[in-house]
Amino acid sequence: MEKDSKLEENELCAASHLALDIGGSLLKMVYFTRNSSRSFDQEADGSSMNGLTTSNDDLHHSLLDGRLHFYRIETSKISECIDFISSKLLQRSGHQCNGASIDDKNIIKATGGGAFKFTNLFKEKLGATLDKVDEMDSLVSGANCLLKTVHQEAFTYIEGRKEYVQIDQKDLYPYLLVNIGSGVSMIKVDGNTKFQRVSGTSIGGGTFWGLGKLLTKCKSFDELLELSREGNNRVIDMLVGDIYGGMDYSKIGLTSTAIASSFGKPVSDSKELQDYKSEDIARSLLRMISNNIGQIAYLNALQFGLKRIFFGGFFIRGHPYTMDTISVAVDFWSKGEAKAMFLRHEGFLGAMGAFLSYEKSGLPDAAQQLLQ
Amino acid sequence: MEKDSKLEENELCAASHLALDIGGSLLKMVYFTRNSSRSFDQEADGSSMNGLTTSNDDLHHSLLDGRLHFYRIETSKISECIDFISSKLLQRSGHQCNGASIDDKNIIKATGGGAFKFTNLFKEKLGATLDKVDEMDSLVSGANCLLKTVHQEAFTYIEGRKEYVQIDQKDLYPYLLVNIGSGVSMIKVDGNTKFQRVSGTSIGGGTFWGLGKLLTKCKSFDELLELSREGNNRVIDMLVGDIYGGMDYSKIGLTSTAIASSFGKPVSDSKELQDYKSEDIARSLLRMISNNIGQIAYLNALQFGLKRIFFGGFFIRGHPYTMDTISVAVDFWSKGEAKAMFLRHEGFLGAMGAFLSYEKSGLPDAAQQLLQ
Repeated sequence: MEKDSKLEENELCAASHLALDIGGSLLKMVYFTRNSSRSFDQEADGSSMNGLTTSNDDLHHSLLDGRLHFYRIETSKISECIDFISSKLLQRSGHQCNGASIDDKNIIKATGGGAFKFTNLFKEKLGATLDKVDEMDSLVSGANCLLKTVHQEAFTYIEGRKEYVQIDQKDLYPYLLVNIGSGVSMIKVDGNTKFQRVSGTSIGGGTFWGLGKLLTKCKSFDELLELSREGNNRVIDMLVGDIYGGMDYSKIGLTSTAIASSFGKPVSDSKELQDYKSEDIARSLLRMISNNIGQIAYLNALQFGLKRIFFGGFFIRGHPYTMDTISVAVDFWSKGEAKAMFLRHEGFLGAMGAFLSYEKSGLPDAAQQLLQ
Repeated sequence: MEKDSKLEENELCAASHLALDIGGSLLKMVYFTRNSSRSFDQEADGSSMNGLTTSNDDLHHSLLDGRLHFYRIETSKISECIDFISSKLLQRSGHQCNGASIDDKNIIKATGGGAFKFTNLFKEKLGATLDKVDEMDSLVSGANCLLKTVHQEAFTYIEGRKEYVQIDQKDLYPYLLVNIGSGVSMIKVDGNTKFQRVSGTSIGGGTFWGLGKLLTKCKSFDELLELSREGNNRVIDMLVGDIYGGMDYSKIGLTSTAIASSFGKPVSDSKELQDYKSEDIARSLLRMISNNIGQIAYLNALQFGLKRIFFGGFFIRGHPYTMDTISVAVDFWSKGEAKAMFLRHEGFLGAMGAFLSYEKSGLPDAAQQLLQ
């Protein structure tokens, strides 16, 4: 696992093919640099530069003559992102390296709703044109590329055990892609460019973060996620045993510890918000949302006869309890027939897709490997 | 619509066949009285007696020689319910009316988890035995009976228009029964006593009430529901237009006003909980939960090829926005193929089922009509 919180001068010289995925809560960025012997990796230390945060993952994937950089920042801090692009990428690569700018025509591939929302801002501040790439197109091409190209991209996560899944490129389709951003999209993927958004839910990462912010003093998604590690959802959720006097409702397969009603306990507690621990609230919220997404995903997979469900999006962030809950939900509702799978580049599917939308011939040689 | 906030002496004399449905949040009670020329009605004025609240509905259904009484109270106030049974029903009917007690053997039919949880309490305080009736059995027999017997029991509710649905007794099955209590049960009903609980969700009435209690100063479910009438969910929810700069994401059929992420707006607002209006929070919460239930219900109906979905349970309470949201969700996800239907006795399905579990021969003549 490499640490790389700073872009080196020589990397910046050749920064190119900048692609953005500007979602409701997070902006994700991918770009390529030549002139580096480094591997294609996702920066790994979670450190930040100008407010841009690298990801906590340990992906390494060799490219011949360059590397891909992955960053994210809150969409609300988009001006910091623009400053970063302006001062670190456009200026240096354009001016100091004799014209090798992000793109010769000052075009930036961009997907997500923010590609529309911030068109004028990018034009005004950077003189750049956001070349819009459809959000679903991007998610699918990003996921397909990663699943086909990156070794050990997909894995299952059950009771704390991570197991990589071998993907047979010839037997990848069909599958259900569940992208958990602020909201959730569920896409039936039948081929390289053949897909349909079949469902979704508004109860997603934005709900976790938004409700979490209202209910606790947490300032960030990661803080909330971290808090949830120590929490006990039984303090907040009404369990079957709470209703049945400690007993299971075994006739219908519900144990006493199953959640009957998320956040149901405050109904009869004579407590106020400040009497509950933030940890417990965060845990309950995470479980409610993860379980619900797992259930709806499974019901959709069942409807379309899809055996494989891949979960991506920045909601997950490799968080053990999130993945465990989604896995348990899929296992429970499918009676063991289906398995949840996760993606190591979970949050960057859309940004990768936007990156790949640069015309194939225009992509650096190294990145072209990704398209083979 | 009759008002009847007090039980008359002559009604109490012949109170019999008391049945309870003791849920996680609410206790529902049904019993029969002879010696009254009144019709079988659900008390209509929402007034309370000893903490027991009658329902806000206008059901009238004629029985020959008596009437059924419907009450509910919060489960946490069960001691008030026991006092009511003790002082108003058992004592008067038992003592003042020469032995015509609730039940000669002091047996009370009871369903819901509380039938287990409060067994000892009823024995200790009333000397009564709770004769447990399975929760799903009760819901189904209650719903079947009401749908077959009560004129204008089922209705659709679309954009504020209530339309009663004619139920052909011979063509009732199969259907999906969605009971929204603290949690939600989804039951595929194939016949009088033939059914299977196929799904459910922990995001139900207890979630609305519990989260609502934590997020607002509301003291009761009804207060929260009332608040939601005046609220604007767009202040709290992240809409497609918020992400897409006011535009629709028309390619996948999402308008700019569609909710992308429930409670997603606080993510980027620099506001705290107290800066949001309780009305808006209540509205957003109601919509999130109603929409989610409608979606999961539809997905299950689809899985089992069920055309009809009946929604019951005390979460609904005849609330226009709740019914509208559920209707819209079912319509949206089914692309107009399925319709949500509601039940006038929504909250009393389980209690009715428990009532009907008194042996047929033991039921008063009038109530026997219900079983034909």
